[in-house]
This record gives sequence, structure tokens and C-alpha cells, in this order.
Amino acid sequence: MPELRKDPINGRWVIIATERAKRPAGISREPDPPIDEVDPFLPGNEHLTPPAILTYYDESSPQRRWLVRVIPNKFPALRVEGELRREGVGLYDKMTGIGAHEVIVETPDRNRHFAQFNENEIQLVLRAIRERIRDLRRDIRLQYILIFKNDGRLAGATQPHSHTQLIALPIVPKNALEELNGAKEYFHFKERNVYLDIIDQELRYGERLVTENPDYVAIAPFASRFPFELWVVPRVPMAAFQTCRDDQLTFLAKILWRVMRLLERALGVFAYNIVLHNAPLQEENLPYYQWHIEITPRLTRVGGFESGTGYFINPTPPEVVADYLRKIKL
Amino acid sequence: MPELRKDPINGRWVIIATERAKRPAGISREPDPPIDEVDPFLPGNEHLTPPAILTYYDESSPQRRWLVRVIPNKFPALRVEGELRREGVGLYDKMTGIGAHEVIVETPDRNRHFAQFNENEIQLVLRAIRERIRDLRRDIRLQYILIFKNDGRLAGATQPHSHTQLIALPIVPKNALEELNGAKEYFHFKERNVYLDIIDQELRYGERLVTENPDYVAIAPFASRFPFELWVVPRVPMAAFQTCRDDQLTFLAKILWRVMRLLERALGVFAYNIVLHNAPLQEENLPYYQWHIEITPRLTRVGGFESGTGYFINPTPPEVVADYLRKIKL
Repeated sequence: MPELRKDPINGRWVIIATERAKRPAGISREPDPPIDEVDPFLPGNEHLTPPAILTYYDESSPQRRWLVRVIPNKFPALRVEGELRREGVGLYDKMTGIGAHEVIVETPDRNRHFAQFNENEIQLVLRAIRERIRDLRRDIRLQYILIFKNDGRLAGATQPHSHTQLIALPIVPKNALEELNGAKEYFHFKERNVYLDIIDQELRYGERLVTENPDYVAIAPFASRFPFELWVVPRVPMAAFQTCRDDQLTFLAKILWRVMRLLERALGVFAYNIVLHNAPLQEENLPYYQWHIEITPRLTRVGGFESGTGYFINPTPPEVVADYLRKIKL
Repeated sequence: MPELRKDPINGRWVIIATERAKRPAGISREPDPPIDEVDPFLPGNEHLTPPAILTYYDESSPQRRWLVRVIPNKFPALRVEGELRREGVGLYDKMTGIGAHEVIVETPDRNRHFAQFNENEIQLVLRAIRERIRDLRRDIRLQYILIFKNDGRLAGATQPHSHTQLIALPIVPKNALEELNGAKEYFHFKERNVYLDIIDQELRYGERLVTENPDYVAIAPFASRFPFELWVVPRVPMAAFQTCRDDQLTFLAKILWRVMRLLERALGVFAYNIVLHNAPLQEENLPYYQWHIEITPRLTRVGGFESGTGYFINPTPPEVVADYLRKIKL
């Protein structure tokens, strides 16, 4: 059974998940362990993964082939079965590893990557994410869902077939809490939503604005941690991604398509992480928070120091990035 | 001039340092850019680096060759010259990038690595760090000094010649603040130092204890983020590393030597980060804090997701690590 353990000093929860050690990538000093030749996400290999939780089919194709498929992670960091139990061990705190760990296989085609998707393909992925969050939040043991995408070795991907991961947690992780608390403090002080204030300022001066459409803006954030880091933020107040209407997903797909194309034109094939920053599951109506998407290209191998210290040195100012991307004609 | 920028939501400061982009490693999609053939840290190449700030010589050698050399970073993230100025930009906050960025070259021998150092070599490095901190803390603009070591590509090292980095900052970084605040809260609640409580508990039960000597313990921490993560903590109350006496540095060198040997026996040649967690420069006597050293081997490339989310999944329980390391005969 996986276990959640809390650092007694800074309150950070860590998942201790021994089953993960069985993964093909395993522990290795080698910078680039060979990737498993068999692609478990390929059509025809569905027997290599646990049964799908959700499948979207191409209804127009005679064979009704699938387009997006959500499956449980074969090496889950957390499990749905069991009882949520908190326990003290001397001065330490731990918790049973209740939760869910799913994989959203974004395309049947192993050579097609998210940065090359068309708007329809992106939209289908977004719909699958929304549907899984809406389903999982009915389990009231779950407090937060992490949605993230690692693409490329430098970004931590071990499977090259395009996919997104979902981890549902019985706690709100530290980084999300900090963001929520920061936004709450700003709201108490100013009586305004900090994200909407940021959007206002970025639209007014434009120097960090990359692109916009009626529902979203994409900016290079003022305190960017990484070169070419971008945020996509909805323009209307909305704390929870899963409350998006269909038309809002369409505009999100449009801006994500544009942003990924711009990044690819600027950087070539690039490794990156995408993380959905969302409200806690049972708090969909927070007035001070705004769900958003953070895209962080991984251009240099700097992970070690930064994930150890939480401290970032970025050689590329966001104004330079935004200016560069704005000038690209797609 | 480098600039410090604060994220308006979570309060994280980022260094925007455009000069860093000129480094040989630069921006690249390639996982392993070729390392510069010329080793600027080699004896005879001293003209390739800025003049040394501190040098320890081998007084017994006829040529008086150097053993440890501290130099300014050629591509500094922060600079000592200039005025410390805070400024608002709309809702954002920024600050001039005042500080220092130094490199401690740990050995003249490019083929000798920290994990293979003998106790005397380790002690000399520790002495140099202590001397630099004691010197820099006289500049009252500086609030915190980060001391960290990246060894190996997976740990973010771009220079294979064994070295440690020093970054002096005009702010206390977020992660340090969180640790300090967590320790302070525990102290207010329990009227005890959390680190000393941890040491007590680990010595009593022993399952996460790796090794100890009269002045220090080495443990695999309860909420380890990484497989084979180890902490070295002093047994006597001491918030600031630079207040160590010589005999305390000797015992620190002894336990570090042992810990690095154990890790190398367990893992072979391995990539790792070492970070000194220290009290803020002007607060050497905090009763609730304990300086300590965190060693995090980088066995898998998982940095992307983790540095984006602050969330960690660790497949190897610390009890297994400690048990394994305790059984190794050196």
C-alpha cells in the first residue's frame, strides 16, 4: 500500500510508493536508459494496460477506432481501494496512499505529439480531463487533482507516446496551498482577484503578453522561473477548470494550439512540462483564485539544484520571450 | 544588472540574470551538450578565471601549490557592486540583483571527485565555506547564503571539475523561510527544537539512522523526496554553520566522508546535489533552527514534474535505504 508522509518541518507531503520502483525506467545512473520498445499505448496493445476508464471513439470511422483513452497507471503512486487513515509515528505524520493515478493517452498515433496536435485533438484531451475530474470529485475523500504532462526526456518523460497524467490526492499539496493562500491574502488586502489584476496589467502594457482570445490570455509571467515559461489564464473569474463550458474549452484549445506552435517555432522540438493549477476539488467557487495552465519548457538541465532549493535563476527575461513570440507569424 | 523578481502570488523570488545565457552550456534541446574541453579550474589555467578571493595552499609542497581556491563566478547571477533598491512595477515587486556568486574549486585535480575525497580534503572545503560565509555576512545588505553542490549531469552540473557554489542573496529565499517558519511554529507549540526532536526519535528507534559520531547524525529522512536522500544534522543546538568550531568541522568531515563512501558503495558513481540549509546571515542564534546538510542523489530524471509542482513520488522507503547503508562495511 502506498503511503503519504509529511515532512515535520515544512509540511511537504511525499508519496512513498514502492511499486513505482518496478517501472521499466527504474533506478539508473545512466542519463538516458533505453526506452521500452513495445508501446503499450498503441492500438492493438490495449491488453498491455489495465482496462480503460474512459474512451472517446472516432464515430465516423467504420472500425470505430479510439481517439483518446484514459487508463489507470500500471505503476500507480496511489490507489482508490482501502481506507483513508491518518496516523502519527512519534513526531511524524502519515496517511494511507488513497487516491488515483491515471494516464490520458492523447492519441492512437505514437508519432504525433501534443505540440503538433490540431485544435480538435487538443479539445478532446481537455474534454477527457474535465470528465475525469468531474467523476473523481464525487469521491469526497479526494481533495486535489494534479494534471500534468511531461514531454521529452529532460522533462521527466519515460514514455514517448503522447500522454497526460492525473493524480488525485487526499490532501491539497503544498505548492497549491501556497498559491491559494497567496491569492487569498491578496484578495483580503485589495478585495480583488490577483490573477485578474495580473491580466489587466499585462493587457494594458502588453510587454509580457504573448497572445489572447475572447476567453484567455497567454503571458510570459513577470517572475518566470524558466526561459519561455508561459501561463494561460482565463479572463472570466473561474476557480475550477472542470466548471468550463464547452465553448470555453474550444477557446482554450485554440489558445493552447497557438502557444504550442509558437514555442515549437521558437525552440524546435523541445521538452516541456504542462501543469494545470486548479482549485481544490471541493472548493469550486473561490472568489480569489483562478485556475490556469503553466507551460515550462526544459531547455537546460537545471532540475537538480532547483527542485532541491526551490530557487530559480533564469537567464531570459519574460519581456524578451513575449516580444520574440509575438513576432512569429503562424 | 541582474534583477530579482517576486511572484505576486506565492512570493517566490526569481533571479533574472541575462548574463548567464552567455555560459558555454547555453540553451539547448540536446540532453548532453559537449563539455568545454578546457578546464578553467586546472592549475595553470588560473588566468581563465577572475582573481581568487581565497586560496588555501599546500604549505609542505616546494611549489606551494593550491589545494582549494574560491573565485567569483564568471557568469554571475548576482553582483556585489551597486545599490540595493526595491521597486514596484504596477502590482509586481522587484529588486536590484545585489549579492555574490562564487565558486569553491575543491581540488586542483580534475579527476578527483568529492565522493572520493579523504577527510582532510573535505575539511578544507568546509573551512573555505565557513570563511567565505563569515566574510560575506559583514555586508549587512546580504540576508542569506545558499551553498550547494551539483555533481553529475543529472544533478545540473555543467563543469565536471569538483566544485561548490555560493550565492549570497539580499532576501531569504522562500524554501528557507518555509523551513524556518515550520521550525518556529513547532518550537512555539512544543517549546522544543524540531530537529533535535527528530534526532532523538531517530536515535531511539534507529530504523532511519545511517551513521553517527559524537557531533553529528546522518539519517534517511522520514519524508524523503528521493531514493537515498540523506540528511546530516549536528547533535548540539546550532542554527548557523559558520559558528562551527574547528573540532566540529573535523567531525563533520568525518561523517560526510563516511556518508559519501556509503552512497558510492551502494550506487556506484552517482549524480547528486548537496545543499547546506543554514540560518539567515544576521540570525545566528535562533533557538528553534538547526543548520544541516541535505544530500539528494539524482538517480532518475524526474526533475521536470517535481520542480514544477513541488510534489514528490519516491519509490524507495527511507527505512530500506538506511538498513541497506548500515550493512555496508567500509
